[in-house]
Amino acid sequence: MSDIVDTGPYATGLQKRVANFTQLSPLSFIKRTASVYPEYTSIVHDDRSYTWLETYTRCRQLGSALKKRGIGAGDTVAVLMSNIPAMYEAHFGVSMAGAVLNTINTRLDAATVAFILDHGEAKVLITDKEFSATARAALTQCKSKPLVIDVDDDKVDGELIGEVEYESFLNEGDPEFEWTLPKDEWQAISLNYTSGTTGDPKGVVYHHRGAYLNAISNVVGWNMGHHPVYLWTLPMFHCNGWCFPWTLAAVAGTSVCLRKVSGENIYNAIADRKVTHFCGAPIVLGMVINATDQEHRTFSHEVNVMTAAAPPPAQVLAAMEQGGFKVTHVYGLTETYGPAVMCAWKDEWDGLSVEERAHEKSRQGVTYHMLEGLDVIDPETMQPVPRDGETMGEVMFQGNIVMKGYLKNAATTNESLGDGWFHSGDLGVMHPDNYIQLKDRSKDIIISGGENISSIEVEDTLYKFPGVDAAAVVARPDNKWGETPCAFITLRSGIEASEEEVIQFCRDNLAHYKCPKTVIFSELPKTSTGKIQKFKLRERAKELGSLN
Amino acid sequence: MSDIVDTGPYATGLQKRVANFTQLSPLSFIKRTASVYPEYTSIVHDDRSYTWLETYTRCRQLGSALKKRGIGAGDTVAVLMSNIPAMYEAHFGVSMAGAVLNTINTRLDAATVAFILDHGEAKVLITDKEFSATARAALTQCKSKPLVIDVDDDKVDGELIGEVEYESFLNEGDPEFEWTLPKDEWQAISLNYTSGTTGDPKGVVYHHRGAYLNAISNVVGWNMGHHPVYLWTLPMFHCNGWCFPWTLAAVAGTSVCLRKVSGENIYNAIADRKVTHFCGAPIVLGMVINATDQEHRTFSHEVNVMTAAAPPPAQVLAAMEQGGFKVTHVYGLTETYGPAVMCAWKDEWDGLSVEERAHEKSRQGVTYHMLEGLDVIDPETMQPVPRDGETMGEVMFQGNIVMKGYLKNAATTNESLGDGWFHSGDLGVMHPDNYIQLKDRSKDIIISGGENISSIEVEDTLYKFPGVDAAAVVARPDNKWGETPCAFITLRSGIEASEEEVIQFCRDNLAHYKCPKTVIFSELPKTSTGKIQKFKLRERAKELGSLN
Repeated sequence: MSDIVDTGPYATGLQKRVANFTQLSPLSFIKRTASVYPEYTSIVHDDRSYTWLETYTRCRQLGSALKKRGIGAGDTVAVLMSNIPAMYEAHFGVSMAGAVLNTINTRLDAATVAFILDHGEAKVLITDKEFSATARAALTQCKSKPLVIDVDDDKVDGELIGEVEYESFLNEGDPEFEWTLPKDEWQAISLNYTSGTTGDPKGVVYHHRGAYLNAISNVVGWNMGHHPVYLWTLPMFHCNGWCFPWTLAAVAGTSVCLRKVSGENIYNAIADRKVTHFCGAPIVLGMVINATDQEHRTFSHEVNVMTAAAPPPAQVLAAMEQGGFKVTHVYGLTETYGPAVMCAWKDEWDGLSVEERAHEKSRQGVTYHMLEGLDVIDPETMQPVPRDGETMGEVMFQGNIVMKGYLKNAATTNESLGDGWFHSGDLGVMHPDNYIQLKDRSKDIIISGGENISSIEVEDTLYKFPGVDAAAVVARPDNKWGETPCAFITLRSGIEASEEEVIQFCRDNLAHYKCPKTVIFSELPKTSTGKIQKFKLRERAKELGSLN
Repeated sequence: MSDIVDTGPYATGLQKRVANFTQLSPLSFIKRTASVYPEYTSIVHDDRSYTWLETYTRCRQLGSALKKRGIGAGDTVAVLMSNIPAMYEAHFGVSMAGAVLNTINTRLDAATVAFILDHGEAKVLITDKEFSATARAALTQCKSKPLVIDVDDDKVDGELIGEVEYESFLNEGDPEFEWTLPKDEWQAISLNYTSGTTGDPKGVVYHHRGAYLNAISNVVGWNMGHHPVYLWTLPMFHCNGWCFPWTLAAVAGTSVCLRKVSGENIYNAIADRKVTHFCGAPIVLGMVINATDQEHRTFSHEVNVMTAAAPPPAQVLAAMEQGGFKVTHVYGLTETYGPAVMCAWKDEWDGLSVEERAHEKSRQGVTYHMLEGLDVIDPETMQPVPRDGETMGEVMFQGNIVMKGYLKNAATTNESLGDGWFHSGDLGVMHPDNYIQLKDRSKDIIISGGENISSIEVEDTLYKFPGVDAAAVVARPDNKWGETPCAFITLRSGIEASEEEVIQFCRDNLAHYKCPKTVIFSELPKTSTGKIQKFKLRERAKELGSLN
């Protein structure tokens, strides 16, 4: 180790040494917390609970057992699990072995899981028996022959399909395992497949440095404090739970597991476990707001909710605030370790009306503390757009919480990262106060009569229509206009409205060319994380054919 | 840039790029805060105040003006200032030029300042006119011929001795200066001289990575929240104000400047400026507790106080708590960027009696979040001592917030850092709950009013007093200063001198705070080999009791 980077009197004798240089890794967080707060509660899962010393020990056993099976640096350990203790432990134990954690979306079909196992070259698959049917089917389809470990959680049904049960596997490991930090903080820590809009899923690779920094960004940005009680409404398979497994180790928080996300379960956890924080897509906010009286529980402490994927509409925000929830709006992509942008709140906005507050909060905002660059850029010229809140450009990111790249996909990696910025594919504007606002995914823009229409803007208007529970707008092919906006709407039960009424409402509130020409009342297809699957709506709009 | 650190499928195409790798530097914090909170208050100084946009702009001007004068990487910019806005600005502007900030203790004598200017090879000296007499004397004594910039603060007397006044100098700079991050986060950011136990002061070098990480450790460890109002009771020349200039930029806090630290000024700042946080040695706590009724002001918000250098005694803690202050006990050295260890509080201690709470809080505690290793080690065997709270060993540190090393002092650097741990020279024990507790400061150091005084340096001066045969200086307990230097002197036979004469001699040759407050003429107890037994003198000094 000798990398002198200075000049002048600073040029000699000041090199990196073991005493003064440590690779950044979230493994340091769990080591510290197990030492300082060994008796504090780390994880609660139904009637089971663990202390930090127990969780740390179990992680060491997992790391040791993996290592004994020959798993180490450069090896992928895939997991197909709910938000259960073993899933949390995998976030540390796999890294302790030096290996890379690949959390697979449990809602995927077997063929896609098989693709991921093969593409990621998984050496191990840890599978929750709830998903053993999918796992079994995937294993028959893939070329990889990973060691399969079953988690035999007693609260779910399912077969055991693997070679060894998880608890037995842990017993193979040394509880005093002397794991080491990665040789380089740039080393891969995890692999997250994103559902590509075109073709096969892409494997986004995170490194230890980025995981460490975004874990801390969550603490600082959300002002989390020590010992939060965190409810796992957000799947850990989603961008490693937005880095929160590592965040909770840093601040010695408690993970409250949750197999099934429902309004009832959320309120019970808040009332019984004193949950202080949770994350979720708008669908989770909907469960909270729309809980029945029987599901609803009262509580007196502050509950902080981080939401992403769509800006919270005014009525959702108002209902959440009245319910005792403090909502923070964040934005990010799998490629940015989850949240990397936040609508940093300003005290002076407290005095605004709920609509005005929702307007401010609907903006995606500013960089996370540890994201270096965020801008709205013209991808042709690579020049930032004017800060006028109107000129559209592509949202781009720069910094330590941008992925290493896509696994075994140099072409797309170079395309995405090659010119100094990560190209998100999202379209937005930059406001004069340096807050960004998304206007659309590039593919979600509707081009009608040569005019760009932001589907988000139309959706925002639709959400103001009385009784609308969910709304999505996509392009419908049109012989005359090229495309026209086609709205899909879910009304709350008991509410009735006509297509004509909805269109008229839009015409009263929007430029006419932006108004939907078609309104379809229907349930909206959603992903496991609550994101509306616009591509399915787009297919339905295509099937409708041209309006003109 | 191509540093592949992985194996297996991760071995190719995942290198560092501009898009996904940024050097860690606290400069990123001020850039972000100026963008997100441009109109928030950054600094208040008497009747002046600045916004973050203004402070950022002034820092850019400073960086640009320095660069125009040829200052850049590897160059030292020394400053001799109180806690005034220019001092804060130097923490960013100097780095923007790529240079290294050397904050000099304003209480030092001219000869020591001259030594520091020469040893650090200062190219620039920015001096507050309050200290122009010392600066002028130092400049006549040193070989360095730095560019001298005067800060003409209108609240103090003093001459202008330099080539250019600070505000004029800023005007030479470009307010839109396109500064760049360091080429490597390991690059030096600052230089802090510590009064060594032997011989000349040693120049402790910090790097951008460590400054970034300890700034964030302050936020996470102290749970600071956004927009704290921070009172500058702690000199910024001490370990760069324990990294708080950088911390405040990260969380968009307000710096309340304070030329003169007094109980009255502290209470006024709390009541009028709504100060939420301040740091200080026990003497600062004493000022708060012992304020007269006229000095005392009432306030209703929580005020957080971080203290170091000596554990807060039970009666001090009780008085602080009753006064509305929440005290956190930290520990560190110049070599560890200031605080690197904290007595992490546990909720279950809340129910203890004030004596029991003080007992817990008197322990130095556990690692800061971003310090990797802390242990009490037998320096002979390099084995950790038993965790029994009794066995003494040397406190040692490991991690990213340990200094780069001592400037131009490879021998001492190797001695301090060479075997994988930073040797603090402090003696302590490790408790069964993994909290450390200091038992003895390294034996030669006296801590008076938060300032380290090397007994050897004082002894060297005493030996110059005519007729001194032997001299030894130890700490005498002091209610006001914590400790004061107590000198034991043997005069040659036939020689007579008074306590007053000896003290006056020291005042003519040493910084005043280093001078003995007590002089005892006596034979000195010695070992069979002629070594002075300081522990016996320490006992005698203790028996004398507090001077104040």
